[in-house]
Amino acid sequence: MAAPVLISIYNQEPYIPVLSAIALITTLLGAILFLVIRSRKTIGYREGFTMVTFGWIAATIFGALPFWLTGVIPEFADAFFESMSGFTTTGASILSDIESLPKSLLFWRSLTHWLGGMGIMVLFVALLSQLGAGGMQVFKAEAPGPITEKIKPRISATAKILWFTYVIMTIIETLILLAAGMNWFDALTHAFATMATGGFSTKNQSVAFFQNPVIEWTIAVFMFAAGANFALYYLAMKDKSLKNFWRSEEFKLYTFIVLLCTAVIWATLTPKYTPAEALRLAAFQVTTIISTTGFATADYGFWPSLAKGVLLLLMLVGGCAGSTAGGMKVSRYLVLFKNSTLQLKKFFHPRAVFSLKIGGKGYSESVIISILQFFFLYVITVIIGTVTMTGFGLDLTSAITSVLATLGNIGPGFGAVGPAQNYGFLSSEAKYILSFFMLLGRLEIYTVLVLFIPMFWKR
Amino acid sequence: MAAPVLISIYNQEPYIPVLSAIALITTLLGAILFLVIRSRKTIGYREGFTMVTFGWIAATIFGALPFWLTGVIPEFADAFFESMSGFTTTGASILSDIESLPKSLLFWRSLTHWLGGMGIMVLFVALLSQLGAGGMQVFKAEAPGPITEKIKPRISATAKILWFTYVIMTIIETLILLAAGMNWFDALTHAFATMATGGFSTKNQSVAFFQNPVIEWTIAVFMFAAGANFALYYLAMKDKSLKNFWRSEEFKLYTFIVLLCTAVIWATLTPKYTPAEALRLAAFQVTTIISTTGFATADYGFWPSLAKGVLLLLMLVGGCAGSTAGGMKVSRYLVLFKNSTLQLKKFFHPRAVFSLKIGGKGYSESVIISILQFFFLYVITVIIGTVTMTGFGLDLTSAITSVLATLGNIGPGFGAVGPAQNYGFLSSEAKYILSFFMLLGRLEIYTVLVLFIPMFWKR
Repeated sequence: MAAPVLISIYNQEPYIPVLSAIALITTLLGAILFLVIRSRKTIGYREGFTMVTFGWIAATIFGALPFWLTGVIPEFADAFFESMSGFTTTGASILSDIESLPKSLLFWRSLTHWLGGMGIMVLFVALLSQLGAGGMQVFKAEAPGPITEKIKPRISATAKILWFTYVIMTIIETLILLAAGMNWFDALTHAFATMATGGFSTKNQSVAFFQNPVIEWTIAVFMFAAGANFALYYLAMKDKSLKNFWRSEEFKLYTFIVLLCTAVIWATLTPKYTPAEALRLAAFQVTTIISTTGFATADYGFWPSLAKGVLLLLMLVGGCAGSTAGGMKVSRYLVLFKNSTLQLKKFFHPRAVFSLKIGGKGYSESVIISILQFFFLYVITVIIGTVTMTGFGLDLTSAITSVLATLGNIGPGFGAVGPAQNYGFLSSEAKYILSFFMLLGRLEIYTVLVLFIPMFWKR
Repeated sequence: MAAPVLISIYNQEPYIPVLSAIALITTLLGAILFLVIRSRKTIGYREGFTMVTFGWIAATIFGALPFWLTGVIPEFADAFFESMSGFTTTGASILSDIESLPKSLLFWRSLTHWLGGMGIMVLFVALLSQLGAGGMQVFKAEAPGPITEKIKPRISATAKILWFTYVIMTIIETLILLAAGMNWFDALTHAFATMATGGFSTKNQSVAFFQNPVIEWTIAVFMFAAGANFALYYLAMKDKSLKNFWRSEEFKLYTFIVLLCTAVIWATLTPKYTPAEALRLAAFQVTTIISTTGFATADYGFWPSLAKGVLLLLMLVGGCAGSTAGGMKVSRYLVLFKNSTLQLKKFFHPRAVFSLKIGGKGYSESVIISILQFFFLYVITVIIGTVTMTGFGLDLTSAITSVLATLGNIGPGFGAVGPAQNYGFLSSEAKYILSFFMLLGRLEIYTVLVLFIPMFWKR
């Protein structure tokens, strides 16, 4: 919270006292919490779960204060939505005129993405090493996707490596964007939003504002990279080889989906654009949706039906495990498609024993059930969420995609919540509900839902 | 096939020679097949699966002949679509002027519903008793929903009871519709379409044509009844008591969903209609969608968003196991919701053993996996199907609901495939694809997909 204060001083904004007060209060509260947690030797399962969900809600509330107390976003529901959208790297906004925001708040808005991307709590695990079993729980509950293996035996070492990779890649992208012609401020904020797969831009027109193919391709490549497993980058740096990328079935499938969908959308766009333009638009839109970033270079609401259908499909896919992307994740589909084949074989040979292996690693029945169950809960949330949103008057397409875009941490959907629109027109209740979906998606449903089981609260 | 011949004679239609020829050919081919199968002592798993899928495709092709060879439906793809829609009890039509059809073909169209409803093969199992293990396979593969228990120890006895109940209920409904003012022809054809949860009407305006509240309520009640497990009716007749209805968790949940959704839609419609009208419209539309029938008394495309959202939800629910309804089925949701709670408990207590019980019956992990996997395949089919349909130029809402309406054997969807529209405008390719979804839905995916596994064809 010191960053917006410094920027407001630099730009001589009238918000210096308010932002300083917020920074001071959060620092004080943080210090108190730190001392309380330090005095505990270890944290258990229950504390791990509770910490993550309530930690995110607390971060969202405190993160909303700069928007709300400065009066820039007068409604608290709006400020809360924007803050939740930032931390969960959704990138859905209630703002119709983003450029009217002071620099300090624009920076804070992008910073929430970056902090949320690799996980506020994973950062916390990286910085504190004495967490014990609870640390693993926090890590498992918050890290995006089903990461079953640790890179390093100690969880805090794994968390440090993930954050280190994340920082390095953000710096590289910032430098390239600078070289491509962006100013420091835009380069850094867009790198935050890309690496976190967030999607908040500092411009009303999003990335389309820059009218610069080099910038668009750079962001597309980094969005693709941010949607892949970060452990692969660490292994590539360590081994000085790319072999782990081609050994990863998930990465191969992810790349295949991106290439295939880009090709299909390219084909639908070529009658309207030059081949190079169509390819750039297609590649940008595919990477921005599959990585759940949500930047825009075009209003795809006007694209041909098939292009829209492919984008809808990508909204349901999401990035890889261990990336900063949201959504169902490619690895889950990999397990479920392989299991579908096994299940069909089993149907025919009821007594035979088949085992599911991916990359030489076996999956037990209980892991498969848990992934299948995740898929079920994800889809049920979409269905119940859609009905709820129609209750607020949204048409079917807008209702379905508003839920997909928030639960999948993407940002824009179709129709009333399309890339040229924003979420500002919704009622406060609808904004809180969609904020809840963002949290549910970012913490991958189980972490939040487990708090609703009475058994969780029993001794 | 004798029925349309008799009706064409009675009405002195010009189609007597064509229809007679078709009836003769199918009888001959049927006789040959019967003799071939009679000579085999028993049929195995493989034969069971192959017979069901290919049996349905054969029935559809032969069923399309009366429409096609009379020239009433000149395109074969259209006749095939109409026939598949009939046998699978979908009720989606390519016809824009239904009333222009001769009586003989209108009757045949409704009869395909009735034959497909309880299962052509189940009828076959009921009539032939010497099928052995294959009979059970055929029964399991074709009977709608996850029927795990047999009412009678011998499968042919169970099949006989289901068909007996089905016939009795069709007769009762026909008599009530007659008493309410319909003529014999309309009463019988509408009873066929109701009990099979099909949805083909003999009128362009569907049930709305009759402008008769008694007819609408009668059909609503029988659609509700046809969406419940038929074994419950048999047990009620045998025990002369309704206790089994209230013992069935599935029936209770099904009733609860119908009442709740009717209440919600009623509330959204009351500003526009009188309370009694709104209740009738709401009850009719809820029962017609959850039972996957697809009759219409109003164009719900113009209803408020929330009403449309609730109907979309119902499209994904479907009726009960052992009913003539399509869709996911209530019992599957019952298992999956219970398992979700178990899974959350397990997440917190990884080593504890929990077991899933419904109505005192335990469910093993492999049964739960198979139901979860069914849900996954169902949703994936909807997603891939939606993208395919956008490729034919349909907008998102029409694309999604065209797949939901055919895979769920419902009939009408929203938008371009809404209740006041028909499927005639689609290309032949799109019609064959949607016909495949109808078959996939009616045979509950596995039965058809298993034929695509290379292992199935190995010795």
